[in-house]
Amino acid sequence: MDGRKMTNPLNLRDVKITGNFWKDFMEKVRTQVIPYQWEALNDRIENAEPSFCMKNFRVAAGREEGTHNGCVFQDSDVAKWLEAVAYSLMWHPDAELEATADCAIDDIVAAQQPDGYLNTYYIITDLSRRFTNLKDHHELYCLGHFIEAAVAYYHATGKDKLLNAMIKYVDLVDSLIGAGEGKIHGYPGHEVVEMALIKLYEVTKNEKHLRLAKYFIDERGKQPLFFDLENKKHGNGFHWEKSPFRFAYYQAAEPVREQHPVGHAVRAVYLYSGMADVARETGDPTLIEACERIWNEMTHRQMYVTGAIGSSEHGEAFTYDYDLPNDTVYAETCASIGLAFFAQRMLNLSPKGEYADVLERSLFNGIISGMSADGKSFFYVNPLEVLPEASEKDYLRRHVKVERQKWFGCSCCPPNLARILTSLGSYAYSKNENNFYMHLYIEGDVKIELSNGTLGLSVKTDYPWNGSIAMKITEVPEMPVTVALRVPGWCKKFDVKLDGKAADYTVNDGYVYLNGTFASGTDITLELDMPVLLLESNPRVRENAGKLAVQRGPVIYCLEEADNGKDLHRIYVPADTAFTVEDAPGFFGGAALLSSPGLRLVQSDWDTETLYREANTPEFENISLKWIPYYLWANRGPGEMAVWIRKK
Amino acid sequence: MDGRKMTNPLNLRDVKITGNFWKDFMEKVRTQVIPYQWEALNDRIENAEPSFCMKNFRVAAGREEGTHNGCVFQDSDVAKWLEAVAYSLMWHPDAELEATADCAIDDIVAAQQPDGYLNTYYIITDLSRRFTNLKDHHELYCLGHFIEAAVAYYHATGKDKLLNAMIKYVDLVDSLIGAGEGKIHGYPGHEVVEMALIKLYEVTKNEKHLRLAKYFIDERGKQPLFFDLENKKHGNGFHWEKSPFRFAYYQAAEPVREQHPVGHAVRAVYLYSGMADVARETGDPTLIEACERIWNEMTHRQMYVTGAIGSSEHGEAFTYDYDLPNDTVYAETCASIGLAFFAQRMLNLSPKGEYADVLERSLFNGIISGMSADGKSFFYVNPLEVLPEASEKDYLRRHVKVERQKWFGCSCCPPNLARILTSLGSYAYSKNENNFYMHLYIEGDVKIELSNGTLGLSVKTDYPWNGSIAMKITEVPEMPVTVALRVPGWCKKFDVKLDGKAADYTVNDGYVYLNGTFASGTDITLELDMPVLLLESNPRVRENAGKLAVQRGPVIYCLEEADNGKDLHRIYVPADTAFTVEDAPGFFGGAALLSSPGLRLVQSDWDTETLYREANTPEFENISLKWIPYYLWANRGPGEMAVWIRKK
Repeated sequence: MDGRKMTNPLNLRDVKITGNFWKDFMEKVRTQVIPYQWEALNDRIENAEPSFCMKNFRVAAGREEGTHNGCVFQDSDVAKWLEAVAYSLMWHPDAELEATADCAIDDIVAAQQPDGYLNTYYIITDLSRRFTNLKDHHELYCLGHFIEAAVAYYHATGKDKLLNAMIKYVDLVDSLIGAGEGKIHGYPGHEVVEMALIKLYEVTKNEKHLRLAKYFIDERGKQPLFFDLENKKHGNGFHWEKSPFRFAYYQAAEPVREQHPVGHAVRAVYLYSGMADVARETGDPTLIEACERIWNEMTHRQMYVTGAIGSSEHGEAFTYDYDLPNDTVYAETCASIGLAFFAQRMLNLSPKGEYADVLERSLFNGIISGMSADGKSFFYVNPLEVLPEASEKDYLRRHVKVERQKWFGCSCCPPNLARILTSLGSYAYSKNENNFYMHLYIEGDVKIELSNGTLGLSVKTDYPWNGSIAMKITEVPEMPVTVALRVPGWCKKFDVKLDGKAADYTVNDGYVYLNGTFASGTDITLELDMPVLLLESNPRVRENAGKLAVQRGPVIYCLEEADNGKDLHRIYVPADTAFTVEDAPGFFGGAALLSSPGLRLVQSDWDTETLYREANTPEFENISLKWIPYYLWANRGPGEMAVWIRKK
Repeated sequence: MDGRKMTNPLNLRDVKITGNFWKDFMEKVRTQVIPYQWEALNDRIENAEPSFCMKNFRVAAGREEGTHNGCVFQDSDVAKWLEAVAYSLMWHPDAELEATADCAIDDIVAAQQPDGYLNTYYIITDLSRRFTNLKDHHELYCLGHFIEAAVAYYHATGKDKLLNAMIKYVDLVDSLIGAGEGKIHGYPGHEVVEMALIKLYEVTKNEKHLRLAKYFIDERGKQPLFFDLENKKHGNGFHWEKSPFRFAYYQAAEPVREQHPVGHAVRAVYLYSGMADVARETGDPTLIEACERIWNEMTHRQMYVTGAIGSSEHGEAFTYDYDLPNDTVYAETCASIGLAFFAQRMLNLSPKGEYADVLERSLFNGIISGMSADGKSFFYVNPLEVLPEASEKDYLRRHVKVERQKWFGCSCCPPNLARILTSLGSYAYSKNENNFYMHLYIEGDVKIELSNGTLGLSVKTDYPWNGSIAMKITEVPEMPVTVALRVPGWCKKFDVKLDGKAADYTVNDGYVYLNGTFASGTDITLELDMPVLLLESNPRVRENAGKLAVQRGPVIYCLEEADNGKDLHRIYVPADTAFTVEDAPGFFGGAALLSSPGLRLVQSDWDTETLYREANTPEFENISLKWIPYYLWANRGPGEMAVWIRKK
């Protein structure tokens, strides 16, 4: 690990996303999700269970009468909404929305206790019980999300009311939890505060904030196990006591440097993201090594082709290497989002193509599959194979919904989607010294503050439907800079031109490096060859044996019943299939669709009353297959869907 | 349905099983299972949880101090043991065992209340609560098993102490439950008493016993639902309230004549067996029709190739047509046993080959797979595909054990295995008027009381390893008789000879009918061609798409890691495979083993750090496969196993 290569994200205000693919998503979040979520937080959705989110704060502040309602982590939904609002304000100023957010922050901060404590569950129920169940009661989780919201809102508006409240709350936590004598030697059951504290540290530069994040990382899983002691001391319940997980559900059975991907997948990737953040700030080689090892074990052995993770509904968790069932899968939207967090941080540790490949894989597939094309309904579980009858009648697949659901009273994925989709600029680019890294190709304008001046770039592209990226340099420092352009792992042939002429470049770890003193107005074009690929799995993945998946650019495709009829399991794809790419601008905001010849196993020689017979030579009929991007599945009513298709 | 075709089982005392395959199983039960179970019933197994079975009776009788321990249906284990003992005494008299059983019966009957009630749970805990939870508290289930034990013991020994006790208990039940005013209009949550009452009726010829069985069948599932009313009246819990099953778990959501295979599989087949019994006694065409329809729906769409049923662990239940997962399967031993009960009764309703085919399929595969080769340990779940790592780490397969377990404190399958294996004679043969039906081929001597005299037959065979069956007529009536010999569905070519000469016969519905006045000493030989068959599933069974299974005679084969290495999912069987059959007399009591050429997908071009890549042409290596009978799997330590293998 070369410490000098570490990079930082850009200031989000310096990124303008102006067109095409991602702008559509961002606008959906801004115009649909954020307003709808605000109504939900305020219990104004008809026929939906109330969330009690904002009400809890007003009750805690003494501004309203009432009890606490909702989950123990109900506060965090408000924080995630605020964070998304902050990002949205950065690229779309909106005085009304900002005023609404200010009012929300006023209600939130009004609930803060004189000593800094701020969690509605304990304020309303029994303050004397606070910090007695770090394992399950999510106080530090809610704190983490509020820190992230406060930092984002400060960056977006310059307003520091929430930020100061969180600094005060962190002071309290630091006085009660940590290494000192008489303190609680604990850490959160649901991670997130670790990476949040690093965001806070980046603003405050207060070593205390870094130290606390580091404490939570280093203390985790040390013997004797804190959660075990805490259970005994406070008589806390232990839901996973008889599960094979036990404390590993919380990634708390071993010190983090000895861990493998384990337990609840969202918690896991949040922890790994925090580890990578602390590693970047401290340069701790043992922590960097742990991050790299866990990254490899997870993405090389336990990640779906859609960039989803967490293959088991039991504990929403990892199971074991190469266990990637397509139909009983969990693959939570939030886990893919957390994987993107981790990928972004690994990229910041070291700009390697494989980190950006995973980032892109999750973004274009397992993350955005979580939201319907109209932005109004959401998947928590993102299966790679669906049979509606099984979802209805098989207990093992009851969690696999065939249609996206409306926002729920107790909800994580929709606000998590909102905050990642409104802050894509911090994933797309990074920089260090005089180097600029372009990880994702998004139409828009970027300003990069390098150590020797400002680099400006304007990007035009129809990515991911097309592999042409046209960049124009709009502003340059006087000194040489390096522009590193990512060549995705799926791209085997590419071409780089400077003002239409073959460019001089080097290639390293998935990036094309252009070095020099560029003139303003210089055109850089990158042509990525984007053929349709037929993918196979490592044979260790039993569920995909003898099957193929289809990918073009970063987009994974699937077959749906709507286009290809029922019984997708009888469809076979010839190994030498030639695909036709068809631009479909009217297909849910525009997409490239694929068609190909295929085969369907003939069933007409079987009646419904014979289960087994002596094997015959199977008969196949020629059919035409239509493939749609995976993330767009289930936008046309319930039906079968499959990503991995049998190979003929 | 031709009423005249209905048949009756033989008197078990008239069947002597003398050699080879089944005799070994019976001897295992007699010498291992029955003595071990008696120790277990008396809490004398070291390092095992006590069962409290016999102790509960002595406490209920006031012969010992104590409380009730074990499940609410703990009594039934004693009944099943007694039934197995009774059958065993019929073919292997054993004064010591009979004395032990007499003592047990003495303890049991001592617990009977003056009004006839006999259930240790309520006698010990609170008699006033009896019959307040027919849905879940198994009083009628225990009664059913005790009736079956009492009838068997009466047939075996002529002793009627237990029989009279049960007649008295049935009188009580009949006075409290049934159609009359003021009675409980209920039926059992776990069926078995229906078929038991028919066995009792066959002994007593008391119409009351038939009427009560008929009442339980006819009342079941009528609106308003009894279990719903009972729940409300007595404030009973309802475990399945939020499951899609609800009352269908108990086959109690609809009247039986409108039902499809549903809910807990063991309960279901026990109910269907009772329905078929009542149909045979009453000739009710609507009930016969319901039995035939349910039989078809179950065996044509929801039965594993091993004769196992109940594909889901959730509720140990049926799911939906063609849903037959091999790895997350339940396939309880008791459900296969219940399927054999149902098959036997359908055969008695009408001697059709398909009923006997299913009977044989379950007996030779899904039933005896439940017992280890040494008769000392047992499977409840009988998977068709096993990966030890998954059983350990995947919550969905935690119930799939890779090794058979010792008898448990609360146990159903081992005693159920004991009673079916000790009473095979009642499955192998049936008769009516002057017709004798041979459904199974077992070495031994049979005496058949026909309406015009006694037919005696001596059978020699090495079935299932060999398709030759040699029969000698040892005793004949003076009038003509019909001998019907079953030609199994898997047999496409057969030959029948009388004294070495081509016989004159007709074939109907899977049976060869020989009519005539036979001379004593006549030799009948049946040669069943027994090739190795490669089977395919109906394409509607998604889990078996592109896979083959191997069957020879009635025996399903499997691949085990012990013979074929790890990663059975990488093994392919060519469609035109030629098998070699090898007699292995030393292989767990003797078996025909199979070997064949096979292919294994080469994995050496994959490292463990690559999950997906562009599809290559797969490489296969030639290997030699060794197949063992499925029922013998897991006798050589833990390892992978698979029945359905990929087809090349």
